[in-house]
Amino acid sequence: MSLRLKADILGIESGGRAIVFLNKFDADELGIAASGRITVNYKKKSLTAMVNTTTSVKRGFVGINEEVKKSLGLKQNFAVEIEIATFPKSLQFIHNKLTGGRLGYDEIFEIVKDVVQGNLNENEISAFVTALSMQGLDLDEATGLALSMVETGKQLDLGKKTVADKHSIGGVPGDKTTLLVVPIVAALGFTIPKVSSRAITSAGGTADRAEVLMPVDLKISEMERVVRKSSGCIVWGGSLELAPADDIFVRSEYSLYIDPLLLPSIMSKKKAVNATHLVIDIPTGRGSKMQTVGESDFLAKELIELGRRLGIHTQCVLTNGEKPIGFTLGPSLEAREALSVLMNRSIVPDLVDKVCHIAGSVFEMVGKKNGYQLAREVLRSGKAEQKMREIIGLQGGNSKIKIEDIPIGEEKTEIRAKKPGQVLGMDNVALIELARAAGAPKDKGAGIVFNKKLGDKVRVGDVIYTIYAEKSRKLSRAMELLSKAEPVRIGENYEMFIHKIKESSVIKRPFMMER
Amino acid sequence: MSLRLKADILGIESGGRAIVFLNKFDADELGIAASGRITVNYKKKSLTAMVNTTTSVKRGFVGINEEVKKSLGLKQNFAVEIEIATFPKSLQFIHNKLTGGRLGYDEIFEIVKDVVQGNLNENEISAFVTALSMQGLDLDEATGLALSMVETGKQLDLGKKTVADKHSIGGVPGDKTTLLVVPIVAALGFTIPKVSSRAITSAGGTADRAEVLMPVDLKISEMERVVRKSSGCIVWGGSLELAPADDIFVRSEYSLYIDPLLLPSIMSKKKAVNATHLVIDIPTGRGSKMQTVGESDFLAKELIELGRRLGIHTQCVLTNGEKPIGFTLGPSLEAREALSVLMNRSIVPDLVDKVCHIAGSVFEMVGKKNGYQLAREVLRSGKAEQKMREIIGLQGGNSKIKIEDIPIGEEKTEIRAKKPGQVLGMDNVALIELARAAGAPKDKGAGIVFNKKLGDKVRVGDVIYTIYAEKSRKLSRAMELLSKAEPVRIGENYEMFIHKIKESSVIKRPFMMER
Repeated sequence: MSLRLKADILGIESGGRAIVFLNKFDADELGIAASGRITVNYKKKSLTAMVNTTTSVKRGFVGINEEVKKSLGLKQNFAVEIEIATFPKSLQFIHNKLTGGRLGYDEIFEIVKDVVQGNLNENEISAFVTALSMQGLDLDEATGLALSMVETGKQLDLGKKTVADKHSIGGVPGDKTTLLVVPIVAALGFTIPKVSSRAITSAGGTADRAEVLMPVDLKISEMERVVRKSSGCIVWGGSLELAPADDIFVRSEYSLYIDPLLLPSIMSKKKAVNATHLVIDIPTGRGSKMQTVGESDFLAKELIELGRRLGIHTQCVLTNGEKPIGFTLGPSLEAREALSVLMNRSIVPDLVDKVCHIAGSVFEMVGKKNGYQLAREVLRSGKAEQKMREIIGLQGGNSKIKIEDIPIGEEKTEIRAKKPGQVLGMDNVALIELARAAGAPKDKGAGIVFNKKLGDKVRVGDVIYTIYAEKSRKLSRAMELLSKAEPVRIGENYEMFIHKIKESSVIKRPFMMER
Repeated sequence: MSLRLKADILGIESGGRAIVFLNKFDADELGIAASGRITVNYKKKSLTAMVNTTTSVKRGFVGINEEVKKSLGLKQNFAVEIEIATFPKSLQFIHNKLTGGRLGYDEIFEIVKDVVQGNLNENEISAFVTALSMQGLDLDEATGLALSMVETGKQLDLGKKTVADKHSIGGVPGDKTTLLVVPIVAALGFTIPKVSSRAITSAGGTADRAEVLMPVDLKISEMERVVRKSSGCIVWGGSLELAPADDIFVRSEYSLYIDPLLLPSIMSKKKAVNATHLVIDIPTGRGSKMQTVGESDFLAKELIELGRRLGIHTQCVLTNGEKPIGFTLGPSLEAREALSVLMNRSIVPDLVDKVCHIAGSVFEMVGKKNGYQLAREVLRSGKAEQKMREIIGLQGGNSKIKIEDIPIGEEKTEIRAKKPGQVLGMDNVALIELARAAGAPKDKGAGIVFNKKLGDKVRVGDVIYTIYAEKSRKLSRAMELLSKAEPVRIGENYEMFIHKIKESSVIKRPFMMER
């Protein structure tokens, strides 16, 4: 049984969920209740959506949210056909995983397809992710998931024999490495079509930082044009629909801080741009997602093997993840710093060291020698700056952008040392929270400048760091947070005490690995 | 940070989920995105809701759905305060279960409390349910869950020393047992405050059947009044708020066909009415949820032990679950049949046998002898009918109701035998689907009358069963379904063949156990 109804566009956004609003009588007519699933058919397209019932949508109409509108390409009063959704076969496969089975490729594909098409609801997706987390997935399943995610999305095919890429599993504040690695690699003519994410829990993702310099919300055809001309790009992956299943899975993983899909997720995004040579940065140490070298080595081994199965040569670089990278945190401050280093205007030793190790690894993978030195030379020569300006221009930004052109928050507070000593610790999580309280990443000009870094000597009254905000209200909010936390710890070098556990210890919310 | 906004009541129902619709600018101001969680405060009440963003709600207003309106008691333009919800501590405990830990009482209580207060979203609840299903829960955890569910809801406290109750884990079509057990038990003055559910996946729950005879949507105070006067009642549990967490958990379990919370769920509802003596019916056999006697015995043992820990004397009765009970399926047809048996107007041997076993067990638990015979006698004497009429009257129905007063669907089709033989099988699942297609339980007059039952001899042209519907369109839908299935199998007694598996076998969706 089906009903023919007119679309009523309500202008509601539901965070990626397809939702329709049915008049109660129409819902009764169809025999469906609130929170049931219906299929909406329009021309040759169809989609599954969750039902809300209402009296405010007229009979004969179906209220649709932006997600449904966009996915089906609907306009006001367009006629659609709705029917009760059939029971998805993939639920059986999820159930099998849940009761301890292994999944074959066909079953995995069916699940991923139903996730992308909206045939599975959040409960069901969450159960799948939970089952994967508890039951574990072997490399065959990971491979199947990665391939299914690629096949259910769009792909970038440049037809090149060698396509380089880099990735960081993230977690380190102020990590603007990509803004330098891409132009360095592209400057020597190697193709590097970099797709980045926005911040989820952090104070800024690479896409947030790059957006300060140029538009990053490109279509796949525009991305291709940029890469064909300049060999590189830095774009936001959010609307490219490369491995879209992943964006849905991550919603389930996020609040439970599990990430069983980490491996297929990372690798599917790389496979979707047809990368052939990949360097993955694994920040390691206290305050990072991977706290020990052993864990990171194990993760690296798995990523490399999964890469092999997908036809991607993969290397991993373990880097120090115990402190912020460079002197800045927050989109505009970081964009300024990156530009300044590209222009050889400032010296940021830790950032440059990390950049050259990663760009250097890419160079060595694609056949160059002495990668680290080569990367340093490309940077020193100004070729990286030139390439970055070319990319900025091609993506629609101002290729002549100066550092001063990038506005930063006008509200600021300097945090000074109350006792002498040394910077003994910088708490990544607390610093990110502080920058977020000040407005980052939404307020691009908000963030933190580190006047002192880990190990630096400090005298009473020295400025340790400076908080920037665009709005005084948000600066106050950041200061309020500071009254409860101490994100930068000052002390004498001999101090041995970490912390004491009195009653039940409160587990800190860890980072989500970035993808 | 918080915002003071005016409530805008949108008249939307979301199947029990609390959802608010924020103007995009207000959402930005608060720093929250679609699908984030906010706390809505009104006077001393507060609730957590999921955010949708929109341009159709004006700035300074917050669009609310019926769930939010009802829970906080809001009216149009009432001022509420909203803020970003704090991170629920219970997520840590869910995470612990997910990684293999056991949960203590305090942790379980925190989870259940957050479920009821809306602090956990569907992903998170689903992950918890999945983790319980995969990891299993021991009897300590089951006890903790049952108690937490009771404590986070309302309770019925009659102050009686002995309170009887009965329950069926369900799955058998046409099971109108409760409509007879309650008046039989109450007729002898024993207290039996029966709370029933509506159909989820079936063609009618006890509440749907009882509603044909009387109102069942009573408040807890009204329920108490009925029980004090007549010793019994048959009411719908949906709005009583007894163990409300369960109603939320069941949504997660439903589509995954897992039910790790079955035990605490059943027992919490019984504890919430302060039952002291409980008989649980476990229909067993092909086509039921429990297919073997071994499984049913194991379930019984666990229910009895959980009962002991909660202070409820519990006995289980295994009954034949391989065929429908009595001659009818569908709310009105079943209400007619139950009334007719109470009035000693018709002979329905399987129904009466089941009723007398269960009512008889209750009698023996509370100190009577020869329970089965006693139950038969109460039924035969007309005392059960008299008691039922008293309950009908007290609940607001017509105590003088006649069988003919109950309308049944005017559209009907007789299904006749195409070959001679015997009724070899009645497919519970297919029969329920057929009755649902015909309109049950929503159309109360829709359903099936069985003219032949399992084992009956059949000649060509004999009517095997009759489908009733209120609307011809739905009758056609049922007939369409019949073209693809054979819910009643006719054949010769010697036939041995069950079915053949050619390629991948399709797993049939099993019943959800009723609670």
